[in-house]
Formats: sequence, C-alpha cells, structure tokens
Amino acid sequence: MSVLARNERAATRPYYRPVGREVEVFEAAYAARLPVLLKGPTGCGKSRFIAAMAAAHGRELVTVACNDETSSVDLLGRYVVMGGDTVWQDGPVTRAARAGAFLYLDELAEAREDVLVVLHPLSDHRREVHVDRRDETIIAADGFALCVSFNPGYQRGLKELKPSTRQRYVTLAFDYPEAAIEQEIVATEAAVDAGVAKRLVAFARKVRGSGELGLQETVSTRLLVAAAKLIAGGLAPRLACEVAIVQPLSDDLDVVAALKDAAALAF
Amino acid sequence: MSVLARNERAATRPYYRPVGREVEVFEAAYAARLPVLLKGPTGCGKSRFIAAMAAAHGRELVTVACNDETSSVDLLGRYVVMGGDTVWQDGPVTRAARAGAFLYLDELAEAREDVLVVLHPLSDHRREVHVDRRDETIIAADGFALCVSFNPGYQRGLKELKPSTRQRYVTLAFDYPEAAIEQEIVATEAAVDAGVAKRLVAFARKVRGSGELGLQETVSTRLLVAAAKLIAGGLAPRLACEVAIVQPLSDDLDVVAALKDAAALAF
Amino acid sequence: MSVLARNERAATRPYYRPVGREVEVFEAAYAARLPVLLKGPTGCGKSRFIAAMAAAHGRELVTVACNDETSSVDLLGRYVVMGGDTVWQDGPVTRAARAGAFLYLDELAEAREDVLVVLHPLSDHRREVHVDRRDETIIAADGFALCVSFNPGYQRGLKELKPSTRQRYVTLAFDYPEAAIEQEIVATEAAVDAGVAKRLVAFARKVRGSGELGLQETVSTRLLVAAAKLIAGGLAPRLACEVAIVQPLSDDLDVVAALKDAAALAF
Amino acid sequence: MSVLARNERAATRPYYRPVGREVEVFEAAYAARLPVLLKGPTGCGKSRFIAAMAAAHGRELVTVACNDETSSVDLLGRYVVMGGDTVWQDGPVTRAARAGAFLYLDELAEAREDVLVVLHPLSDHRREVHVDRRDETIIAADGFALCVSFNPGYQRGLKELKPSTRQRYVTLAFDYPEAAIEQEIVATEAAVDAGVAKRLVAFARKVRGSGELGLQETVSTRLLVAAAKLIAGGLAPRLACEVAIVQPLSDDLDVVAALKDAAALAF
Amino acid sequence: MSVLARNERAATRPYYRPVGREVEVFEAAYAARLPVLLKGPTGCGKSRFIAAMAAAHGRELVTVACNDETSSVDLLGRYVVMGGDTVWQDGPVTRAARAGAFLYLDELAEAREDVLVVLHPLSDHRREVHVDRRDETIIAADGFALCVSFNPGYQRGLKELKPSTRQRYVTLAFDYPEAAIEQEIVATEAAVDAGVAKRLVAFARKVRGSGELGLQETVSTRLLVAAAKLIAGGLAPRLACEVAIVQPLSDDLDVVAALKDAAALAF
Amino acid sequence: MSVLARNERAATRPYYRPVGREVEVFEAAYAARLPVLLKGPTGCGKSRFIAAMAAAHGRELVTVACNDETSSVDLLGRYVVMGGDTVWQDGPVTRAARAGAFLYLDELAEAREDVLVVLHPLSDHRREVHVDRRDETIIAADGFALCVSFNPGYQRGLKELKPSTRQRYVTLAFDYPEAAIEQEIVATEAAVDAGVAKRLVAFARKVRGSGELGLQETVSTRLLVAAAKLIAGGLAPRLACEVAIVQPLSDDLDVVAALKDAAALAF
Repeated sequence: MSVLARNERAATRPYYRPVGREVEVFEAAYAARLPVLLKGPTGCGKSRFIAAMAAAHGRELVTVACNDETSSVDLLGRYVVMGGDTVWQDGPVTRAARAGAFLYLDELAEAREDVLVVLHPLSDHRREVHVDRRDETIIAADGFALCVSFNPGYQRGLKELKPSTRQRYVTLAFDYPEAAIEQEIVATEAAVDAGVAKRLVAFARKVRGSGELGLQETVSTRLLVAAAKLIAGGLAPRLACEVAIVQPLSDDLDVVAALKDAAALAF
Repeated sequence: MSVLARNERAATRPYYRPVGREVEVFEAAYAARLPVLLKGPTGCGKSRFIAAMAAAHGRELVTVACNDETSSVDLLGRYVVMGGDTVWQDGPVTRAARAGAFLYLDELAEAREDVLVVLHPLSDHRREVHVDRRDETIIAADGFALCVSFNPGYQRGLKELKPSTRQRYVTLAFDYPEAAIEQEIVATEAAVDAGVAKRLVAFARKVRGSGELGLQETVSTRLLVAAAKLIAGGLAPRLACEVAIVQPLSDDLDVVAALKDAAALAF
Repeated sequence: MSVLARNERAATRPYYRPVGREVEVFEAAYAARLPVLLKGPTGCGKSRFIAAMAAAHGRELVTVACNDETSSVDLLGRYVVMGGDTVWQDGPVTRAARAGAFLYLDELAEAREDVLVVLHPLSDHRREVHVDRRDETIIAADGFALCVSFNPGYQRGLKELKPSTRQRYVTLAFDYPEAAIEQEIVATEAAVDAGVAKRLVAFARKVRGSGELGLQETVSTRLLVAAAKLIAGGLAPRLACEVAIVQPLSDDLDVVAALKDAAALAF
Repeated sequence: MSVLARNERAATRPYYRPVGREVEVFEAAYAARLPVLLKGPTGCGKSRFIAAMAAAHGRELVTVACNDETSSVDLLGRYVVMGGDTVWQDGPVTRAARAGAFLYLDELAEAREDVLVVLHPLSDHRREVHVDRRDETIIAADGFALCVSFNPGYQRGLKELKPSTRQRYVTLAFDYPEAAIEQEIVATEAAVDAGVAKRLVAFARKVRGSGELGLQETVSTRLLVAAAKLIAGGLAPRLACEVAIVQPLSDDLDVVAALKDAAALAF
Repeated sequence: MSVLARNERAATRPYYRPVGREVEVFEAAYAARLPVLLKGPTGCGKSRFIAAMAAAHGRELVTVACNDETSSVDLLGRYVVMGGDTVWQDGPVTRAARAGAFLYLDELAEAREDVLVVLHPLSDHRREVHVDRRDETIIAADGFALCVSFNPGYQRGLKELKPSTRQRYVTLAFDYPEAAIEQEIVATEAAVDAGVAKRLVAFARKVRGSGELGLQETVSTRLLVAAAKLIAGGLAPRLACEVAIVQPLSDDLDVVAALKDAAALAF
Repeated sequence: MSVLARNERAATRPYYRPVGREVEVFEAAYAARLPVLLKGPTGCGKSRFIAAMAAAHGRELVTVACNDETSSVDLLGRYVVMGGDTVWQDGPVTRAARAGAFLYLDELAEAREDVLVVLHPLSDHRREVHVDRRDETIIAADGFALCVSFNPGYQRGLKELKPSTRQRYVTLAFDYPEAAIEQEIVATEAAVDAGVAKRLVAFARKVRGSGELGLQETVSTRLLVAAAKLIAGGLAPRLACEVAIVQPLSDDLDVVAALKDAAALAF
C-alpha cells in the first residue's frame, strides 16, 4: 500500500464524538507546534480522537503500537538488500516526518529508552530527527504532528515515563464519556436502538461506580460496543453481556458471578 | 505441504461435541467480525472446538503455539535467500490473513509483547496487518477469523494479558463437560465400551471434586481418553489409570498413592 | 556417520534388565501411538531403557540432551551454505520423524519453551511437526516414537514442566531396582564377582535408607557400576568407593566422612 | 546534512540568559581543556547553555542523547557497505573529535559502561579517542570540548555515575533561575506580555515551594514556556496551565486538583 | 602452533610432586576409561597434576578454561570462511577427541548448561561427541581422557554442578600438601634455599590454621612460590610476603595488618 | 597511528613521583616475569605509574579500560573484511603480546569472565595466549608485562575478582601520597605556586580525615590538580574548589555546603 493510498484512506473521516474541550486544546497545541500526549484508560477513544484530528487536517496518520521489542532502527528505517542493490527503507517516524503526517505512538511507556530518546529532537523547537546510520537530519515537514498515548493505570513502578519525557508534551486527560454521550456512541457504532444502548451504559456505570470488584480496568466503551454488536446480530442480551463484557473483565469466578448479576438486572 | 493440501485436510471435520452455547456465540462473533478468546483449563477441548469451527466454515486452520521465543518476524514472515534470489516468505499470520483462514494463537499469554501488538490492527474494525519490513498492509480476506486461547490457571502475576488486550476479544469460558457428555466423548475417541468410559469419568469427577490434593491442574478429558486407549489396547485398567492419569498429574508420593486408591475404587 | 550407520549401531541391543512392568506399559503406549515420559532419579536406567526399546523394535535412537541453549532451530534444522549452495540440514527431530526413529529428549524440563511447543503436534493425534522456515509439515513415519525424560528431584519451582505438557505423555515412574536385580546389573556391567556386587548394593541401600545425610541425590546404580569397574581394575575397594561414590556425592567434609565409614563397614 | 551545514546552523546563536557564574567557569575550564559536567533538574536550561557556549565560540555542537541501547560502536562509527564498497562512517564522538566540535552527551548516567569508558581518554590530558575496529587513535582537534549532563534527581541506586567518572569533570550545578530572570525568559521565548509571564512564574514558585505534593520533578521553566505559548495562541490561561503544566506533572487525581487550584489562584 | 608442535611441548614432563594416592586412582580410572573430576581449592596443583599425567602417557593436553561465555560451538568447532571457501575448524573438544588427547576443562562449574550436556556422551560408555552442525559423530581415539576440575569453595547456590553431572566422574579430592612436601615444591619451583621455603610454608600453615581471618580462600602453594621467586630476585622477605601473599588475599585493612604481622614473625 | 608511532609516544616519559617502594617491587616482579595488580582508590596515580614504568623500560603501553561490554573477541582480535579480502586484525592483548609491550587492563573487576579467563595463560609460567579462532598460540615476546588495576572501594558483592584470579598477581596497594609529595605533584602538574598547592592539599587532607560526610570516594589528587589548573587560569580559588572538587564529590546539598565551608577555610 503506497503512501498515497494511505492518505486517501485517512481522508475518510472516522466517527468521533467530542466529550470535552479536547479539540480546542489540540488545535492550540498543533498551531503552536507543541507535541501532544493523550492519557487515559483502555478503550475510551484516544486512538479514535487522533484519527479524527488527522482526518480533519487532511493528514496521513502513521500509528506505531509501542512495545519492548520496538527499537530505534525499526522506527527510523534500515538498509535492506533488494535484488543485489542496497536501498534505504524509511521507518514510520522518518516517513511521517518527511510526509508531514500525524505520527501516533500508542502506549509510549511500553517503548524502550532508545525509542523515547529518538523522539526528543522531534518534540521540541527543533522538530527534526537524526538518522545516525545515514548521517542525515530530517526536518519535519510543515503539517507534521507528534502525538503519543499513555495509560497511567498500567504503570506500576518499572515502566513509567520519566519526568523529562513527560514535560515535553501538552497533556490531554481522557476518561469515559458522560452517560448521554456514551449512549449515542454505542447506538451509532453498533447500530442498535437507543433502548439497548441505554441499558448497556447503565450497566457500565453501575460497574464503574462499584469499587468492590477489584477489577484491573473497568468496563470500557469499546466493550459496550462489542456487546451491542452481538445483540444486533441476534444474541440474547445477557449472553452478549457475558461473553463481550463480563468474561473479558475477570477470571475470578465470584467477580464473574457478580458482574453477570449486574447484567441480568440491566436486561 | 501446500496451502491447498492444508485446506483439504481441514475439510475433514474433526469430532467435536458441543457442551454449551459456545457454537451460537462463536457464530454471532464471527458474523460481527469480532475476534474470539477461548479461556479454560488444559485438555478441555478448546483447540478441538476451533478446528471444528474452521471445518464447519470450510476454512483452513492456521495454528501458532505461542511461546517466549516467538517474535513478530516469525509471525509476519521474512526475506530468505533461495538459490541466489531474495524471496519473501509469509509467516502464519500473513498467510492466514491473505487466505481468509482461521488463525488460532494457542496460549496467547505466553507470547511476547511485540506479538500481541502485531495482532492489534487485526483484532479491531481495521482487520489488517502491517508488515513493516515490506512496507505492506494486508487487509484480511473476508472469511478470516482471529481466535486465541488463554489458560487463567497458569497466569501467576508475570504473564498476564493486559486489560487492553483482553478487552479486544469476545470471550468464551470453557470447562470440563458434564458427566454424560464426557462419557460419550471418551467412548467415541478411544473406542471403548460405555462401562469403561463411565468408570473413568466417575474417577475423574471424584478427583475434580476433591480440593485436598493440591494438584496444579486436575484430570482433563484428554487424560481419560489416553487411559481408555491403553485399556482398549489390553492394559489392565488400574495400570492404565496409573500411567496415563496419576503419574502425569503429580510427583508427590502421597498424592500419587491417594490417586491410585481412587482409581482402584473405580475399577 | 550416516543414518544407516546409526541404525546398524542401534541394532546392537544394549543390556537392559527390566525391574517392573515398564516394558508392558511401553508396548501398549507405542501400539496406541501415545508419547511416553520416563520420570525418576539420576542413573536409574531411564536412558538405557529407551535404548533397549529402540533396539527391540529395530529402530534408530535419536537422543537430544536438553538444555537452556537448545533452540527449536537446533531441533528442526537450518539452511546452511555449503560450497556456494544453500542446502537444508535436518535437525534431530525432523530426522527422527522422517526416519521413523525413536526420538528421546533427555531432561525435557531443561529445555526452553519454544522446544516444548515444537513437540506439541508430534505428541498428539497429529503426529506431525511444522517447520516454519521451510513452510513444511512432516508427518512422522510409522514407527516413530516420542519419548522424554524428567527428573522430579531437580525441579525447584522455576523449571517445572507445565501441566499442559505433562498431560500429553503416558508416564512411567522409575526408581532404583530391588537388591537382587541391582546386584545382577552391577555384576554384569562391571564384570565383578557376585560378592563385590552384593557388598556395593548393600552399601548403596544403607545410604539410600538414611535420610540424615542431606544429599541432593543418593547413590545411583551408575555409581555402583563405576566403583565396581575400579575394583575390577585392581583398586582397593574402600578407595574405589571413596573416589567413585563418596566424593561425587558430597563436598561436605562431615558427610564425606560418614559415607566413608559406611563404605568401610561394607568392605 | 553535511558538517558544514551543521556548523552554519550552530552559528545562529540561541537565546540564553545567564543565571549565575556559569559562563565564567565554563570559559576557565575550556581554556584549561578540562571537560565539563552540567548537573541539575529537567528543563532548567542545561542543553541551551551548551548550545550558547558552542555558538559563542563558533563551534559545531554534536549532541548525543544517552540511553541503554547506545553502544560504543554507535558513538565511534562503523564500517558500512555502500554500493559494493566497504566505507568507514564516523560516529558522533569521532566526528566531533576530528572537527574540533563541542560534544554534548545528554544524561550521561543513562549510558552503558562501554560508552563511559570510551570517553576516558578524551576526558583527561590525552584528549584522544581510540577506535579499536580501525586500530586508529584520533587526537581531538584544538577547539574540541567534552560536555556531559546529569540529573541527580533521577539516579536511584542503580544508575549512578561512578566516582572515577565523576572526578573527571569540572561540575556546574544548575537550578531554576530567580523570579525576575525566569519571567524574562518566559516572556521572550513565548512572546507573551510581562503580566502573563509574571503570573506563570508566581504559580511555578508556589508549586516549587510546596513539598507536600510528592511530585517526582517540579514545574520547569520549559513547562511555563509551553503554557505561555498556548495562552499566546488564544487558549484560556487556566486551561493552558492544566494541559501544559498540571497534567504533565502528575496522574494522581488529588494532586491534579491541588495544582489546578493553584493555577486558578494565579489567573 | 600445529598439533604436532603441541604434542612435543606436552612431552616435556612438568614437575609434579605426588601428595597422596592420586596417581594410582587416576591410572585405574584411565584404564577403565572413566572420566575424572579433580576437586579442591585454588592453586593446590590440580592443573599441574593433569599436565603431568598427560606427559606421563605421552599425550597432548588440551585445556579449556570454562566461563559463562563459552558455548558448545566454541568447543565443537565452526565453519569459517577462508579465502572464499568455507572450511570446518575443529574446536578443542573435537580436536582432543580425534587426537586421543587429554581434554581438561578447568572450573567446569563456570560453564553453561549446553557445554555440560555436550560432554555427556564423551563421559559414559559411548566415548563419542555429536557435532550437530556437521551431522557427525566422532568416536574418541583410544588414548583420549576426559578430565575436569571443580572448586567447591566457590559454588554458592547458583553455580553448582548438578548431581547427574557429578555422578559421571570419578572424583579426586585435592588439598594443600603436607609441610615437608610443600617445602620441597616451593624450593624446587622458585630455586630458593630450604630455609626460605621452610619459613614460607610455616607462615602458610599458620594462616591456614587460623579460621578467624574470614578469608574467602587461604594461602595457596602458588602464592608461596611467587613470594619465593621475589625473594630469590632480591626483594626483602617481608615485602615479598606482603605483595605476593598478603595483598592478594585481602583488601580489609585489619586483615592485611594481621597477615603482615604473621609474615613478620616468620622472617 | 602505527605501533611505531605509539612506541615513540610512550618513550616520552611521563611525570611520576614515587610515593613508596612501588618501583622496587615492580622491578622485582618484572624481573621474575610475574604479573602485577595495582589496587587503590580513584585518581591516586595507578595509571600514571604504569605509564612511567613502561617508559622507563622503553616499552609501548597498551591500555584497555575494562567494562561489561568488552569481550574476549575484542581483546584477541577478529577477522575483518577489507576490500574483498578477509584479514586478521589483532586486538590489544595479541598486539601487546607480539610486540613485547606493557599490557594494562584498567579496572579488571569490570570485565566479564571470558576476559579474565583469556588472561590466565598469560599470567602464569606459560606467558602465552590462545587465539581459538585462528587455532594459534602466541608466546609473549620477552619484554612483555601484564599489569591490571582494581579499586577495592567499588566492589560491592557482585563484581569481585575471584581468589583464583587474585592469587595470580603480585599486588601493590596504592593510596594518596603524603602531604609534601602531593603538594609537589599539584604544583608541578598545574603550574601553580607552592602556596596554592599547600592550601589545596590541606583542604584535601581535612576532607579525607573526616569520615562523617558519607562520600562514596574522597578527594583525589586528580581533583586537586584540576582545581589548581582553574586557579592558574584566573578563577577565584573558592569557585575553583567548588566546581572542580566539591560538586564532583556529592549531589547532597548538606554535604556540598559542608565541603564548601571547608574550602572557604582553606582560602
């Protein structure tokens, strides 16, 4: 798939329902050429927000899901041997910088140190990236934006972003939307009627409000949409809630029973 | 063995005896293009279930047994040098995506972070996989299904799936089947008469019901089938139970003695 | 050494003295095409048993001593460059599967996860092995048998076989043989007279019966044979016991003294 | 970008506002050819100081952001294959030594041992660097300066610089500037009026003075400049403070609330 | 140095003074083709003993100093590219096996698992070594002997030889020799008169007899020889004792002072 | 830089002021062909001593700064591809052995096991080094000397030299020189007058004498020379003491204040 093809694709604006002043802040940061960090729990719409912002500005979106194995070489590119010739192949960071794309590093705290350090000159007034292997410095094209995400709920001591990294990013805190907005999102994305969406959101809010269950993370909007899709496909609502919401949340038999009771109350 | 050969093979539908509403849920998730996670203990039929689902839909089944050493390169493919030419060789994930096969990642929690992350775009509405080394994005063919398994009994702190991974999968909880069904399975698979199957299942249920033995995992249906096969081959039932069930379950001399007593009561 | 040469060699049936019903169980498992795990302490005859079984069936024996460094590539084979050409070289597992040999993985618990996982499809009804690098699936030839060994005395928490692995194998528990049988083994293998063999076995049984010495493992039949060989070569029996049995068992000066006293009582 | 181009670039002298006697000490150390270590918290101007010193002396600035993955090979250079020929490519340290540039190793304590050791002969009277792979010793050109930075706040036991490394560097301790100077910096860099700058600095000083919040690092001048830029771009001051200062500093809801209250008092 | 050259060298029989029945036991083990393990503290003559045994039998001695980095590839050999051709290069183990040499693995407990495992077939009745990379099995030539050393004083939990390895070797326990013999060794090796040798040995025996100093290892014969050589070269005996014996034994100022006092009493 | 060039360079004898009987001992050890270990704190002149000894004997000095990443391959040499041909490139150890140079391994305790083991045959009567990759044994040329350094203050449990390594080296304990000698060194090296040197040494001795400050290492002669150079260059003495001595020694604000007070008393 060529870069052109990807641009066209990003041009199909994804559905995004604003839940606060996040668009306003993003626009100000983008205008001031400041990088942005989105923090918040699983499945609350961070990735979708960036996709919508990229589409709104007609920019390609280049996403990197960070993990322990991603090295700076993977991001910056490498020499590969192709049919006897040695050719340079850009990585996602260099491609995004050249193309003036939106670069989105999902779950930045999972990345290794050398990845974070490579981003430093891209995140300040220099807006450039050094490719040591080519002895080349790429100045980011004008529309380029650096965006990263971070889930504070995961970070337990070891994998925390250092303050010197955190202080480089304008930071938007995301959370699950209010009931009316979440209902609208569930109904729109899964094509279910408002009644089903309302019951699913009510169920979610009851679980979120109860701290007793000891869940590592709580019901996300993403889970509600999955359950709604199964219901739309004909599955009994309680069974849909069990397989799409309850079982993904816990393996503890007592917690599963309690969540199933709560789902039974909703439907 | 070519891909065609594999498809033919999968077309031989394996014996699978449904034990609950798992087929109904799978069909709804497959229709909604949602990925599926099977959770449950060793030897309760998770792999066999997926094999049956793939055969029912006339799809090839591509299985990956996850482990610490599996890297994203192993899954996505690599360039190999063959007779002087450099050719691309798909890995199981890319092959399954192109072929519209059922991709089954067994014991997903054993895999490294980079493997989990590679699956992300395949597990949501995008249904695509990025191959950075080729700068290629493969959209999964229409019949493609992403299925994974997970044994909650194993995960002790370190190797747990993150909530952000768990929440991507419709989750089916498996357990050992009811007595009548299990008896039918043992008799069918090992070709023993109903009496032997009944005694083996009775023995298994007694052991499963007794929490005192401190077993890491309990008697699985797989073990009953192995013992039944040895009996069918002429081994004395008590000796068959000892070598096929008791000794695989424990190395503790007291536990072994207690299990042998229970087997002696059954036969 | 070619495969043919190895087969001829295996055909020289090694001395093996049965100590229980292990041959009967092995034959039943082999007939049912079920894999076999031998568990028991050091030097009690596990490896020799498998060598005897392979010879009894006229099959080549392919042995792999498992360790931390053994990778699945080592077992399955690799492409090697030979005189400008790239040729495939089978590893022990693929060679054994093609040749219908007995494959014996000694101390399986020492192997890495990726090795255990490679064996999975060989250990169930599929009896096949996938070679990802060649995109090839090898169906094991008819006489193929998968055998592994495991010493429960070693496994201290970290290196334990997972239940899902254990439950794949019919399990034979080995222990040191009864006095009369062990005496016969020592006399036969070291070519000493019955009196020397009897005293060595008496010494061994005294040490095995005394739990006070805190030995990590106790006197094995292998050690008795070594001492007997030194005596046969002319060394004084007490000195032979010291260097072949006592010093290999402990570095603790008090334990060494106690063991030497016990040896002095025997001779 | 060629070395020439980089030199021209460094020649554009960056804005730097001295806050103590740091320039005087640097000049004395540079005259005596002694290397310099800058220690101090995040965002207090260490990197900018070195950029200003390099510009003042008309020297190129070569910056290396140290991290766990940086090896001595990355710093010294490597042989690369280019169009069939093997050519040597200098790394940042060798390039800086040859060019008589200012070499700046940011966050030296993050580097591996082999990196620190490579710098030893550059940091004493020898002023040379050994390139083992080429069997070459490069004497640093006359204007060369070795500068490193270190943030004592980060180092928790494991990643501390050894005394034998520390004692090689003349050490300048940096801290956040006095109110009047910091105000001048914020107003100049973000192009806001003195009133906004004053309020931002007042807010910063209140937070820095309160030890109760348990922040890992406190408000840096860098954060004030970011907030000021967002205000200059039209964002409401309280919202600008929240996204540019408060959210980057903490994920604790109570701390965030307290910081937002402090920001509300300032504006 | 060719193999021939090495053999000639080994033929120069090194000075070795027997201290017990070690020669008798070695000869019996060698005649029975049993491998030998030498255990004992630093510098008590283990390596010299093996050198003497090899010379006595007119065999080449191939020594491997085991360590964490030694892999089975290092021992068995590898393919290397020489002038365009790929040639096989034997490692020390394969070379020793082919040549019928004495193979001595010093400090075997320092070696990795894969090294120990490679030795297994060489240490039992098979006397062969498998080279997987060549698919070759080398039967050891007739005079071949496998000898290893082990220092029980070092092994603290982690790096212990497993019982299954220990039980493969006839084990000779070494200790420092009796006073008269040690005196003879010191005088012979350093070419000092009997008086100096006597005082050095007296000093050593006093230190060895005092358990109070908390030394990790005590004065070895090797240290006495070094001090004697310095004295022979003209250094004052007390200074020679300090630099050759006391300072190598401890960095604790009090212990150093106590040891110097003991040396002063001797001279 | 060729070996010849290096030899010429070493021939420029560096300034070294003996502080005890270290020269006498070194000469005796060198005459007896015994290797030497220098132990002592940072910056007390160990490296300079070896440089002086090498120069005194007209020998090249080859220095290796040991660290975790240094492998035996780095020390012994490797095959490199140069213009299509494969050529052997000696490493520092092999080059020093062939050239009869002084080989100095600085901070030996930082090196990995395989490095220490490579040195063993160089450190005893064999005076040779084995290069496995070339199957070559190099006998050290006649003037060759093996010297290593070690800082006992650093070694905290993990990175200690094993007794079997320590006992191979004649050991010289270094410490900071007496006041008069240190004063002479400071005045000579920094070209300051005796008054400044005296005050600096007085300050150093006060700090060294006070155990209360909890410094990891204390004021070295090296630090005094650096401060003296800054004073010679015109910096105020108190400021010179702060940046060249106090700040490199501690990051603790109270300790820094106490040290600055002590410096103020000296000047």
